[in-house]
Amino acid sequence: MTTYARIDELSAHAGTTVTVRGWVTHLRSSGKVAFIVMRDGTGILQTVLVKNAVPPEAWALFGELTQEACIAVTGEVRADARAPGGYELGIAGLELIGASPLDYPIQPKEHGIDFLLDNRHFWLRTPRQVAIFRIRNEIEQAIHDFFYDRGFLRVDTPILTAAIGERSGLFSTEYFEEGNAFLAQTGQLYGEAAAAAFGKIYTFGPTFRAEKSKTRRHLTEFWMIEPEVAFNESEDNMKLQEDMLTFIVGRVLERRQAELKECERDVSKLESVKTPFPRIDYSDAVATLQKKGSKVQWGDDLGAEDEALLVEDYDRPVFVMNYPKEAKAFYMKENPADPRTVLCDDCLAPEGYGEIIGGSQREDDLEKILHRLREEKLPEEAYDWYLALRKYGTFPHSGYGLGLERTVAWICGSQHIRECIAFPRMMHRLRP
Amino acid sequence: MTTYARIDELSAHAGTTVTVRGWVTHLRSSGKVAFIVMRDGTGILQTVLVKNAVPPEAWALFGELTQEACIAVTGEVRADARAPGGYELGIAGLELIGASPLDYPIQPKEHGIDFLLDNRHFWLRTPRQVAIFRIRNEIEQAIHDFFYDRGFLRVDTPILTAAIGERSGLFSTEYFEEGNAFLAQTGQLYGEAAAAAFGKIYTFGPTFRAEKSKTRRHLTEFWMIEPEVAFNESEDNMKLQEDMLTFIVGRVLERRQAELKECERDVSKLESVKTPFPRIDYSDAVATLQKKGSKVQWGDDLGAEDEALLVEDYDRPVFVMNYPKEAKAFYMKENPADPRTVLCDDCLAPEGYGEIIGGSQREDDLEKILHRLREEKLPEEAYDWYLALRKYGTFPHSGYGLGLERTVAWICGSQHIRECIAFPRMMHRLRP
Repeated sequence: MTTYARIDELSAHAGTTVTVRGWVTHLRSSGKVAFIVMRDGTGILQTVLVKNAVPPEAWALFGELTQEACIAVTGEVRADARAPGGYELGIAGLELIGASPLDYPIQPKEHGIDFLLDNRHFWLRTPRQVAIFRIRNEIEQAIHDFFYDRGFLRVDTPILTAAIGERSGLFSTEYFEEGNAFLAQTGQLYGEAAAAAFGKIYTFGPTFRAEKSKTRRHLTEFWMIEPEVAFNESEDNMKLQEDMLTFIVGRVLERRQAELKECERDVSKLESVKTPFPRIDYSDAVATLQKKGSKVQWGDDLGAEDEALLVEDYDRPVFVMNYPKEAKAFYMKENPADPRTVLCDDCLAPEGYGEIIGGSQREDDLEKILHRLREEKLPEEAYDWYLALRKYGTFPHSGYGLGLERTVAWICGSQHIRECIAFPRMMHRLRP
Repeated sequence: MTTYARIDELSAHAGTTVTVRGWVTHLRSSGKVAFIVMRDGTGILQTVLVKNAVPPEAWALFGELTQEACIAVTGEVRADARAPGGYELGIAGLELIGASPLDYPIQPKEHGIDFLLDNRHFWLRTPRQVAIFRIRNEIEQAIHDFFYDRGFLRVDTPILTAAIGERSGLFSTEYFEEGNAFLAQTGQLYGEAAAAAFGKIYTFGPTFRAEKSKTRRHLTEFWMIEPEVAFNESEDNMKLQEDMLTFIVGRVLERRQAELKECERDVSKLESVKTPFPRIDYSDAVATLQKKGSKVQWGDDLGAEDEALLVEDYDRPVFVMNYPKEAKAFYMKENPADPRTVLCDDCLAPEGYGEIIGGSQREDDLEKILHRLREEKLPEEAYDWYLALRKYGTFPHSGYGLGLERTVAWICGSQHIRECIAFPRMMHRLRP
């Protein structure tokens, strides 16, 4: 009976004969000995074919192999410290599962980014991309573990919504006889309702922005994690953020060293991500930036350049707190110490990776939030159920949104979030 | 300094004084002693107020409390086997955080389902709903743990898509200058591409069906988990399904007994969910159903009534395998043993809960899948990248889709999936 093994399981099969299935990545031959390097998604395996030791058909088949041909190799698993993964396989049998014509799109040469994105389904197979997605998977599982272990309930908030948190850049779709539905830009408003029901919750899902932005930090569809906690105030909220981020980074450092290396990440930069993170008041941030030559004025939101300028003095993420009310969304709580500002924070990643979290204490005063809705000319009736949370047993609460792809980009050291999601959606990109 | 505690943490504070914040659920008084039962999302707490032992303001405040008022109570935590959760709190201090007018919508009486759904943001706070969402959270985490521990990579496939797996019932939205984008009904096609890159993957996200269906088993937006595994054949695929389902059910039985009890679930029915699950060939299923009086004919898909009739003889989920080609999607692999059929399975939950999984081995033969696309008059060019997976190094692979809300409904014993998702979306329901 055939024993099948995946490449990451080979250590358990050392000295025995197994069959490994996967795709050809490299081929070389010295006339009597040939090497097939193959991948199966779990690892890279070097296999050795000796002309005199295999049936002639196997040797002949080797000559016909091409990049990304799908094959099954059978043979003995041998420990070899020089081999990728620490094992190689001595081929006794070779079988072709699926041939690959010579015009396979991704060749071992430099390709332009548009070409790579057009061929994203194949580009994903290359070593750097595999490493990024192993890290992304680790980050996602770490997030679930972090919240599960702390008694949070995950709540899946709706994508199709009538009322939403921010009004510009919406995708809309016809919804039966109910008029238009909008694709959620955030699950927060629903998260607030759920926090009153379950105490501590988080969302984990896709969010959408129909923005004509072409920066390397924007996608039209991206994943967001949005915790919301009843009775947390702004400082508790920042504490949760720094605990979560250090947990995630620690987990990736602990379990994904090989992948960080494949990404050529300077891990010393990640090792310094420890609590507490610096907390900088917005007004102080503006003063510092002005000293550094920025043209930012009190009242402005901070741009990407200002953010980079501000974090350059720090070795870990930085909180900028208490922005001017006008720069932020209607649902943020007025700061009792300075009512021109709100109790919010942006968490800026180090090394210039920019904002990865936006958080705030939520306005829990019905009159104040009504006033802000009217100031922003938002349709009050669309928010009736949200306002009802303030009418009946209002409660202090805080939450935040973590941008997943930005976090992956920071941890992997990627300059473009478009390689940090499997099939990126941008203004000019809807395929594959 | 105030020590705040959540209700589920009180055992760690027995004998000490803490402050608990939450919402009033029940009030009663005997003139000199009063009881406030409160909830904070993590549990239910009985608190005791003795008139002579508290300041007069606290006693007066008690008289003003109403259902769902948000309060903070301070006092000693006392073990009490009769109390919910095993502890009660002797009130020394009582504070009102947010009053709740007497017209709070959800009253301690029977409400109609439409009223409850209109007030979903408040309905979620009631004990049965809290239990359902604790179970849903357990199921979700169990799914992540199951796949993470087995080396699967989670891949977040796009919601906004140009090409899709099934063509009817699509929500569409304008996508810049790219024409229309469609909300994904499945992530499978992308999952297949990812399986060739990463070996073993799963998706976990919302999917959409713009269907005018009003049954208690349909939502327009629901969550689906879609594993896809390179080199798995149909039997491996069913093995993975039964392993996953028994893992999930076992985990809920292990950790969510109190919530199952709140749902009045007969847990003995869940305890019999063990591998292996029966595997019934479609043709045998039709013969059995006809014997049982069904009018089903060979070639028909099985309806909900047929499914219920078929599973009544079994105490665990049942696989129905190898349906007629015409009843199933174009991407399912032709059955070599009977080319009228495909290598697929539906997994039917016991007790009449119906189909919770649909799975199949995928057609890996380029010519055969092209033939099927043309037969179904699907636009070949929209599937170019998907077909390219068969052109370059095609490989056997299988996967399935688990409907999350249907699974939650089965495990909780709920008759309506609309209470198994936080904010259900149905034909006539887009709010709250």
